[in-house]
Amino acid sequence: MKQNLIIPELKQDIELRLDRVRSLMERDGISALLVASNANIFYLTGRFFRGYIYLSSEGLPYFFVIRPSVFEDCDNVIAVRKPEQIDEVLESKGVVVPGNVALELDSLSWAETTRLRKALKQDLTAMPADCTGLLREARMVKTQLEIKLMRADGARQAGVYRRIAHLYKPGMTDIELQVEIERALRLEGSLGYARTAGRLMEINMGSVISGDNADSPGPYEFAMGGAGVNPALPVGADGKTMAQGTSVMIDMNGCFNGYQTDMTRVWRIGKLPEPAMKAHACSLKILHTLEKVAVPGCEVCRLYEIAEEIAQKDGLSHYFMGHAQKAGFIGHGVGIELNEQPAITSRNRTVLQENMTLALEPKFVIPGVGAVGAENTYRVTSEGLENLTPLNEEIEELS
Amino acid sequence: MKQNLIIPELKQDIELRLDRVRSLMERDGISALLVASNANIFYLTGRFFRGYIYLSSEGLPYFFVIRPSVFEDCDNVIAVRKPEQIDEVLESKGVVVPGNVALELDSLSWAETTRLRKALKQDLTAMPADCTGLLREARMVKTQLEIKLMRADGARQAGVYRRIAHLYKPGMTDIELQVEIERALRLEGSLGYARTAGRLMEINMGSVISGDNADSPGPYEFAMGGAGVNPALPVGADGKTMAQGTSVMIDMNGCFNGYQTDMTRVWRIGKLPEPAMKAHACSLKILHTLEKVAVPGCEVCRLYEIAEEIAQKDGLSHYFMGHAQKAGFIGHGVGIELNEQPAITSRNRTVLQENMTLALEPKFVIPGVGAVGAENTYRVTSEGLENLTPLNEEIEELS
Repeated sequence: MKQNLIIPELKQDIELRLDRVRSLMERDGISALLVASNANIFYLTGRFFRGYIYLSSEGLPYFFVIRPSVFEDCDNVIAVRKPEQIDEVLESKGVVVPGNVALELDSLSWAETTRLRKALKQDLTAMPADCTGLLREARMVKTQLEIKLMRADGARQAGVYRRIAHLYKPGMTDIELQVEIERALRLEGSLGYARTAGRLMEINMGSVISGDNADSPGPYEFAMGGAGVNPALPVGADGKTMAQGTSVMIDMNGCFNGYQTDMTRVWRIGKLPEPAMKAHACSLKILHTLEKVAVPGCEVCRLYEIAEEIAQKDGLSHYFMGHAQKAGFIGHGVGIELNEQPAITSRNRTVLQENMTLALEPKFVIPGVGAVGAENTYRVTSEGLENLTPLNEEIEELS
Repeated sequence: MKQNLIIPELKQDIELRLDRVRSLMERDGISALLVASNANIFYLTGRFFRGYIYLSSEGLPYFFVIRPSVFEDCDNVIAVRKPEQIDEVLESKGVVVPGNVALELDSLSWAETTRLRKALKQDLTAMPADCTGLLREARMVKTQLEIKLMRADGARQAGVYRRIAHLYKPGMTDIELQVEIERALRLEGSLGYARTAGRLMEINMGSVISGDNADSPGPYEFAMGGAGVNPALPVGADGKTMAQGTSVMIDMNGCFNGYQTDMTRVWRIGKLPEPAMKAHACSLKILHTLEKVAVPGCEVCRLYEIAEEIAQKDGLSHYFMGHAQKAGFIGHGVGIELNEQPAITSRNRTVLQENMTLALEPKFVIPGVGAVGAENTYRVTSEGLENLTPLNEEIEELS
């Protein structure tokens, strides 16, 4: 028996998402768009198929499904073999397809974009219209259902983090501990796969960074680096035994239901030197300050400035957001993708809105000790930030 | 201390790869290309950085590194902040940059391609030159070192597969077994991340498919589907208890060193009905036939035809390569990416060459029982296929 494409319980929420996208289309003067990326198909249907969604400022969205073949054909769900069929199907339904249907120019390859433009009979000498930014902006502010899913995700992730100390055995390497955390997350229901925006992020389920490995600069846009266990994937744990007097930063991914929460806590092996303890306290001071400051109307760059000021006042600028190599952000949007809008940088003037979800991760790298600091995923409310990943933030001992 | 960009032991092998790419450039009349994709940067350096490689038909390659900041600056390794610096750096070194430097049009987004074209001062009204196909073709035939790495990868993967029966406990769900296999692979050194070509594949470390879940059509281009445990990632294990009289197909990923081997074996819970046992024997018959037929000079479509003929002769066409939904291929190239060239389809006339590496996976889905069949990764030799994932191919019991 064939299924409905939109899962009935999601129907109302999907309508809200479509309305949100349509109002941004109106603002930007975009009359129609064709969505193809995995993340945006998931956003607009609550599930994933291979194909396309055609959305105009008025009327029903049309779902063109290449794979799988399990959905009920109805007025707006159409099985196709290839994108070249889209135009004639729409025409047969009396839809007038404009010449500048917007595409996800930041996600689709040049070759795929050009193929879709030809399929939509666009003038290839004209500049194509882009909807990547618009869809990222729509997804930045979550619906009630999305927040419910993220809250559930955060609770499950925090539940696994609570058990991390029990997974440790003295003499373990960083990667051995990571594997046990991965197993615990997977048994708890983590899907084990993190959708990311762009083509530059490569990671499996997150990273465990211990001692001086925190100071190994990486090629990726993660807040912390790590050399990895092989040059083929230079990120995170490097396979060394976790040593006395070093920190263990655990930044593993949730993702139990298609939404992600991002969460970091730090453990210690034995006692950490004073500068590391002080830097960790500074990270918590930054988080707790931002939890109050980050209300609708506040510019994102203000959060960055405040974080930097607090680190500077504590004399910790040199170690803030990395040491040998620094990250250019103290946080980022999170949701369907790990790295959503807005990036919390010194220049980003995006204004906070209620129900944005942000991961804030003010971290420090102390040479000879390792990384310290905490990260939570938050929801913006009129009273400040709601923590979606609540759990003790102090450094706990592994023994 | 800064490192050499090219790891000394790799130097000679990298030269062979560069020569291979250059000879294809000459054949195709491409005088220069700029490489940016993760897989191709790894191919041309044996490591990964964020940045670009400029390669002309003559002279040194130039490596433009954005992140990390750990490499020695030398004549051809240049730290940059952004691609807009490439043109002037090359000019300052006396390199004449042609107007049609080829880009990876099938991997880079439309937006990134356009940015790079502007940075290289290309005429945006002209069609850009593409090097995706050329680089895929170069990577299709492996060097001796690449084969050595793949052989090592296959041996480690087979070593973990040998222990799978010990990981099973009666009453387990498919996902519980999968998590134990993931843990075993990770402890053995699997990097836990599979590079794939294109934007459509989403998977963590492979899949375990049990019983009728094999007949759940999926949106991805994997040989078998599976519903997954959540509609957000509809692939593989669905969380049900593995039942008596069903098969358990295990298709987990290797990837211990940046190269991947693809390998499938089948286990059974209790006894499987005769049609499933017959279909599995047919899969092995196909594999063992192709192991002899697949020699340099043979067209890839011939492998597909032979497989189809054998399945038909055994009266199994209805179940071959899926039942409710069928895959259009019986195998694929494999190496740095899971899905390399050539795809083994009915229409692909690519001619086999020595040292190509292929994953062959003739599989069947028997309703009510599950998926059966084996998959190995092979190297093409003048005497037929060398199996890089050797291990008993018969169905073993889980008990």
